[in-house]
Amino acid sequence: MRRGKLIGLGVGPGDPDLITLKAVRALQAAPAIAFIAAAGRASRAREIAAPNLRPGTRELIAVMPMTQDQEATGRAYTQLVTGIIGELGQGNDVVFLCEGDPLLYGSFAHLMHRLANRFEVEVIPGITSLSASAAAALTPLGMGDEPLAVVPATLAPKRLAAVLQQADRAVVLKVGRHLERAREALAAARMLDGAVLVENVTLAQQRVRPLEGVSEPQVPYFSLIIAGRRRGRE
Amino acid sequence: MRRGKLIGLGVGPGDPDLITLKAVRALQAAPAIAFIAAAGRASRAREIAAPNLRPGTRELIAVMPMTQDQEATGRAYTQLVTGIIGELGQGNDVVFLCEGDPLLYGSFAHLMHRLANRFEVEVIPGITSLSASAAAALTPLGMGDEPLAVVPATLAPKRLAAVLQQADRAVVLKVGRHLERAREALAAARMLDGAVLVENVTLAQQRVRPLEGVSEPQVPYFSLIIAGRRRGRE
Repeated sequence: MRRGKLIGLGVGPGDPDLITLKAVRALQAAPAIAFIAAAGRASRAREIAAPNLRPGTRELIAVMPMTQDQEATGRAYTQLVTGIIGELGQGNDVVFLCEGDPLLYGSFAHLMHRLANRFEVEVIPGITSLSASAAAALTPLGMGDEPLAVVPATLAPKRLAAVLQQADRAVVLKVGRHLERAREALAAARMLDGAVLVENVTLAQQRVRPLEGVSEPQVPYFSLIIAGRRRGRE
Repeated sequence: MRRGKLIGLGVGPGDPDLITLKAVRALQAAPAIAFIAAAGRASRAREIAAPNLRPGTRELIAVMPMTQDQEATGRAYTQLVTGIIGELGQGNDVVFLCEGDPLLYGSFAHLMHRLANRFEVEVIPGITSLSASAAAALTPLGMGDEPLAVVPATLAPKRLAAVLQQADRAVVLKVGRHLERAREALAAARMLDGAVLVENVTLAQQRVRPLEGVSEPQVPYFSLIIAGRRRGRE
């Protein structure tokens, strides 16, 4: 019997219109979709994909506890993987929904590594929060031969600063509770000037503003900073 | 009179299905499109957008000479900008077609900086060649808190190596004639192992192979390398 294919599908950063034609077709053809949701909250990836889902599509969901309970998290994830393997084994393709792009700091890479030796895997790329944020801020991510650093704010402060120091432009991801750490690393790399904070990109609550004017100690989880060193010379 | 809006529109890396719904709508509504083409060649961005263009859409084209004749290049570009300003001044929106994403190493940023003080500018993000290449190679661009370096192979060799040394993963763009330079920098950063070369991503001529096995001295212009340092530990 033909085995099903695991498809990692990027739904883009939030605006349902920032999904590709290829993704729309895959969603409409999918016998089953899979996604991760936090307990008590709707899945953002599921919401973005919703306009393109057919009634009758089976939905495999891992509901992650809000606590840091690693055992419960592991159980929910294992149950999801078991469900996915069940569908694939019966010859059904499974579309795993990913916010943004599946292979840029998402959870899909782990799933892919776990299943790629047993099942065919396909990835449908998505619009990244980087591109959408650059568009919202009207700020280039890279020009000419400038190196761009993409770095999560969760990285150890010394490494964060070292990475930024080598780049001409930078995107600091997952700012959330790490705003001060990101600000310090950007200052050490002389990248504070002109840095822009983008929150909830392409959603109704989208906000774009100079990092300079941000006074609250923490910002939404879905926020990133775009910074550069050469802005004055453009 | 209302002035027109300049729209930088990402058509994605090549596959016409890797365009967003938002871009399709903007193309269908555009009174005029603008793009750059090399002399004697079709514009790749125009080809990708073609299925979504309406008959009657005006086309503003800068035909760039194949020679390094800077004066002729400048003339062609100035003429394009003059045409765009003419349309905008008459209240017509102009969609500028960009391969990949408009703000990631494209020519749109220059146009945006030139016109943003006089006209409204909007950017519609596109699927990057980075995301499409990662999908083709089934290789993550970033996981967890890993820093990712994105760097054109045209950067000076010492800086190229320094940037790579700070990163856990890297994408080297615009490899083309600079394959040896890229290989040396990756070797210096201990990133050769597992590095993958992706050529003409999502096109009929797409090719994905380990950099190790590449023996020709130069590769197509549209090629990039995805590399990492932690591959063995995943």
